[in-house]
Amino acid sequence: MSKPLNLNPDRLFPAEPGVRAIARRLYETVAGLPIISPHGHTDPAWFATNAPFGNPAELLIIPDHYVFRMLYSQGIAMESLGIPTKDGTPVETDPRKIWQLFADNYHLFRGTPSRMWLDHVFSEVFGLTVALSSETATHYYDHIDAALKTEAFLPRNLFERFNIEVIATTESPLDELKHHQAIRASGWGGKIITAFRPDDVLDPEYEGFSDNLRRLGELAGESVETYAGYLNALRKRRLFFKEMGATSTDHGHPCATTANLSPAEAEALYLKARRGECSPEEARTFRGQMLTEMAGMSIDDGLVMQIHPGASRNHNAQVFQRWGRDKGADVPSQTEYVNALKPLLDKYGNHPKLEIILFTLDETSYSRELAPLAGHYPTLKLGPSWWFHDSPEGMRRFREQVTETAGFYNTVGFNDDTRAFLSIPARHDVARRMDCAFLAELVADHRIDEDEAVQLAADLAYHFAKKAYKL
Amino acid sequence: MSKPLNLNPDRLFPAEPGVRAIARRLYETVAGLPIISPHGHTDPAWFATNAPFGNPAELLIIPDHYVFRMLYSQGIAMESLGIPTKDGTPVETDPRKIWQLFADNYHLFRGTPSRMWLDHVFSEVFGLTVALSSETATHYYDHIDAALKTEAFLPRNLFERFNIEVIATTESPLDELKHHQAIRASGWGGKIITAFRPDDVLDPEYEGFSDNLRRLGELAGESVETYAGYLNALRKRRLFFKEMGATSTDHGHPCATTANLSPAEAEALYLKARRGECSPEEARTFRGQMLTEMAGMSIDDGLVMQIHPGASRNHNAQVFQRWGRDKGADVPSQTEYVNALKPLLDKYGNHPKLEIILFTLDETSYSRELAPLAGHYPTLKLGPSWWFHDSPEGMRRFREQVTETAGFYNTVGFNDDTRAFLSIPARHDVARRMDCAFLAELVADHRIDEDEAVQLAADLAYHFAKKAYKL
Amino acid sequence: MSKPLNLNPDRLFPAEPGVRAIARRLYETVAGLPIISPHGHTDPAWFATNAPFGNPAELLIIPDHYVFRMLYSQGIAMESLGIPTKDGTPVETDPRKIWQLFADNYHLFRGTPSRMWLDHVFSEVFGLTVALSSETATHYYDHIDAALKTEAFLPRNLFERFNIEVIATTESPLDELKHHQAIRASGWGGKIITAFRPDDVLDPEYEGFSDNLRRLGELAGESVETYAGYLNALRKRRLFFKEMGATSTDHGHPCATTANLSPAEAEALYLKARRGECSPEEARTFRGQMLTEMAGMSIDDGLVMQIHPGASRNHNAQVFQRWGRDKGADVPSQTEYVNALKPLLDKYGNHPKLEIILFTLDETSYSRELAPLAGHYPTLKLGPSWWFHDSPEGMRRFREQVTETAGFYNTVGFNDDTRAFLSIPARHDVARRMDCAFLAELVADHRIDEDEAVQLAADLAYHFAKKAYKL
Repeated sequence: MSKPLNLNPDRLFPAEPGVRAIARRLYETVAGLPIISPHGHTDPAWFATNAPFGNPAELLIIPDHYVFRMLYSQGIAMESLGIPTKDGTPVETDPRKIWQLFADNYHLFRGTPSRMWLDHVFSEVFGLTVALSSETATHYYDHIDAALKTEAFLPRNLFERFNIEVIATTESPLDELKHHQAIRASGWGGKIITAFRPDDVLDPEYEGFSDNLRRLGELAGESVETYAGYLNALRKRRLFFKEMGATSTDHGHPCATTANLSPAEAEALYLKARRGECSPEEARTFRGQMLTEMAGMSIDDGLVMQIHPGASRNHNAQVFQRWGRDKGADVPSQTEYVNALKPLLDKYGNHPKLEIILFTLDETSYSRELAPLAGHYPTLKLGPSWWFHDSPEGMRRFREQVTETAGFYNTVGFNDDTRAFLSIPARHDVARRMDCAFLAELVADHRIDEDEAVQLAADLAYHFAKKAYKL
Repeated sequence: MSKPLNLNPDRLFPAEPGVRAIARRLYETVAGLPIISPHGHTDPAWFATNAPFGNPAELLIIPDHYVFRMLYSQGIAMESLGIPTKDGTPVETDPRKIWQLFADNYHLFRGTPSRMWLDHVFSEVFGLTVALSSETATHYYDHIDAALKTEAFLPRNLFERFNIEVIATTESPLDELKHHQAIRASGWGGKIITAFRPDDVLDPEYEGFSDNLRRLGELAGESVETYAGYLNALRKRRLFFKEMGATSTDHGHPCATTANLSPAEAEALYLKARRGECSPEEARTFRGQMLTEMAGMSIDDGLVMQIHPGASRNHNAQVFQRWGRDKGADVPSQTEYVNALKPLLDKYGNHPKLEIILFTLDETSYSRELAPLAGHYPTLKLGPSWWFHDSPEGMRRFREQVTETAGFYNTVGFNDDTRAFLSIPARHDVARRMDCAFLAELVADHRIDEDEAVQLAADLAYHFAKKAYKL
Repeated sequence: MSKPLNLNPDRLFPAEPGVRAIARRLYETVAGLPIISPHGHTDPAWFATNAPFGNPAELLIIPDHYVFRMLYSQGIAMESLGIPTKDGTPVETDPRKIWQLFADNYHLFRGTPSRMWLDHVFSEVFGLTVALSSETATHYYDHIDAALKTEAFLPRNLFERFNIEVIATTESPLDELKHHQAIRASGWGGKIITAFRPDDVLDPEYEGFSDNLRRLGELAGESVETYAGYLNALRKRRLFFKEMGATSTDHGHPCATTANLSPAEAEALYLKARRGECSPEEARTFRGQMLTEMAGMSIDDGLVMQIHPGASRNHNAQVFQRWGRDKGADVPSQTEYVNALKPLLDKYGNHPKLEIILFTLDETSYSRELAPLAGHYPTLKLGPSWWFHDSPEGMRRFREQVTETAGFYNTVGFNDDTRAFLSIPARHDVARRMDCAFLAELVADHRIDEDEAVQLAADLAYHFAKKAYKL
């Protein structure tokens, strides 16, 4: 006798019946809008090859660091979850065992967004009707595994079923974008675009930086022995990405530092960086200089610039050594914006052709720094609550702390920022619900009228992202 | 067929009907109390000359940096809003065009306090009954413009209609307070007092600092060639301000640093500052030393000391160059209090004659630093949520984060801190509503009794400000 | 005609009737669970001697820094409250006068947790039925004073009446634990255990550090002239504490800094510390090194490690001089964890035998640093909202900001952390109510099911603390 799995149609709406009714009315107007996914990490190979997804563990557990970091935090070995190692340590290979272990510990996700996303995937994507538990683990595995083998669950079919209007992947300038080329060549109508993420060729502290520069030069047909050649190579790769649909760049720096060096200083620092001789301080300055250069190039080529600083990457040294990057061990750190962005803003902050979207992992900056900056500079808009904060409470705090100073119109709608393709509808649904809940509260205490809330609900769910990302 | 403009009588009250009923009852007891406005930036010339206000754009848009910074953040040129430039760049001079542009973009203010304040002014002050929009812009302009030409809208008549018991303006020690003298001489009974704001003669980094010192010496009849003479000049100007009604000083420093130098160190640093030779670090120390000196003088002359640190001023270099100060480009920055205030508190923190009111633009300090400090030191009280946080959510966060540690009695009621005279009733009304909403929540979950809430509502709306500012 | 004193059975539950009903149902399942108090500062002498408590002022005002700091912050002299001085300044000695002064100012506590705790003590522990006020002060004094003289109010009888399953006191390694030995020898069944709090022998800046080391060596029978001997002495004292019931250590450092020095560096720094020659920077490094050493010892002896950094102690220099430590003048300061803990975590962060419980006084770290760290590292769990944040709003913020990233299962239930023995049931009751209120909200908006909430309510109220502290 298993517990039923029910997604309540009123989930995430305020409990007070009057406010809930408003939220429900607002949500009904946006629930069916197409999904704009302008920033994420899905794999373009899925759509290029349209091959079936793997087994349930391979699809839903092994690649999802939200999921396995929580299990690991409670003492469950990553080896037993089948997370592939880099140092040759053997890991569990039976996907049914991995799935059972996950199911046995599903209670750990109570109160987390992962739980909401997963239940949504189970119910809405796979049509499961009982809750996941130790007892139902095998039923789940069999059901999902069978579904994944059907035509309906091929990547392109899911893309269409999910009502995705456009999705952006993220690639390095060193990527030749063959999958994107293949998608275009295939004649399939799904709009899969790339985004230009050049951290590996802008950050002197990135693994293999000087090799990356060499490769950049080759791909662009430019000599990277001079700063001018390096900048030209970047310009050319940006244009190539733009041809492949990119409308944005994406910059994941450790801090928000920008710089505005003289040409001679920039040249000298570049040469030092290329030789691998930068101090940490100089590396930071170089990254900062490159953000300013990227802003300048955005003015020229029209790519929207996304900056999301503040992650302390690979914090767990032992986990990094055995498993490598992106294993749930990235942690936010305190992030300053007001002084950090000034050099870039002094140069370009009022330029009518520049659009910068700022993200943060440090919520203290919402009301103190980000909303005041975005509420003044015409070039700045605020990205949604991101990563550790892309959750119901995180979204609520974002709206509560940002709206009064920046207004709604200096924000850009929702980003799912995910590699978990099946969870994309769930994530957008949570965002739409939370935005409708927030708007309903404003209507209920008479801060805005309901007709205004209807407009804003559609703006937040669809139009703002489309406009901000030029989609 | 325009949309009606309705100020709902329950606006800002919690949606749950039981709590809303409590909030309403509390609000009814304070809605009619006179306004105490102990900290603001209205122009004393208005009340001295009692000349009619200008046209609608001149009154409500051009001077209000909350309004034009939001428009500017969405790409509307400040020139087209008629914001006067310092560099001679021509700006729009037709107030009807400016007003229309504002009306066309009024949706940008959805969810902001400016929207609430403006709608309150339109409805309650001007009696407008349709909502502002592109279509109603001309009607608005004509209606407001006509009203401003009537006797009822002369500054003194509005002052009386607004039920303002006392209003404090803010002046530099270099101001001769001629308008205040004229108001007194006029025999009009409105209580307009000044406040002593000496940033321009305490901060070595202020524009024209050494000229300011010279002028200070002249006005005070003291030589400012020595530190002792400088301090004497400040003492004399404080006394002059006190004669003109001042009960407080007001200090807007970039950070909360205080210092307690030896007399010889202070003298040496003063001479350096006077010669314009301070490093940024020394300038900070000098400002910090002067806060401690001001505290000492407050003990002598009884002026209440207000400290509101943490604004990074004139962040937008291009805007500053063209338009100058106070153009919506001030941004909060992270502000530390615990170490910064220690030198002053070590010297005077327990003195029975000193009262310091602390403000912040960095909400992270509410529960971490400010409430614990105010909940211990007898000399410290907390100013209300200020500037970027003088909004419904900002006020709610202030009460939620401060009350449990500092209690209500270490706070000082509301400050409007505005130069937008017509919005003063709106701002106090928002504060009274939000305080009643907060108290109603405490009553509803049985943390305080309703009779206590009634007392507190009046304290927060009226008595605390009157007492804390010695009015 | 005094006001009645009523503890409403629905206090602290959400006002919306549907949510309130859920909260009430949840609370009913946990209200009667025994109290686990794994971290606090009650005096073991009470239970060893079982002597009656003193008079009402001596019991409820003079030792409670939450109470007298609030009175002091409003200008009431600490001398008039009978707070004993170290410099010989005479203080009020009439407990009735002290009590009356407290009662006259009881309104200052409106909206604070002290008010909730005190009313709970008055109503539930003493059976008082009128509210405290100037008029009822004498009645209160007489009633409480009489009760304290009865057998029912002897410490051991209260312990049993309060349904305390276990309580941990906190002692220095320099304590011989005679009271704990006496309790064991007495045959009384109450479980009173100690916790190992070695700040005075780990922190080179602690008063009398080198004397403390000497005494540590004597007690342990080890020479502390070498680092190895010092570490051995600590190991032995830990084992002695463990024999006396300790299951945890407790570390109250100014910051979260940890270090991982080479043996030679550690030895050299230790010798410097012992000679009292450490710079502030070196003292910090030494404390950090000792946290890492303590973690290593915890792996060996199984004591759970508690770290609660970030208090700026004895901020008020004049109060410290006259009254000494712990007089309500400790203030939180900004606290960084991500970089600070890395050396310790690099060494031991994945060790299956280590458990670290992290606390904070800086709420900005909840969602930014602590939840992400605890949601990844298997060795880390989060202590409850602590000290300035052990209040209804503080607890709500803790759950709202922590749960989505760390889940419930990386938290450890409630700590009362108090020396106010009579308030222990009140404090646990507030925590249970707030946790049920939070869970009820999650149920009401369909984030978890009610059967899950029932389990979690018991976990948060009882099981998590028992498990995390190995009780």
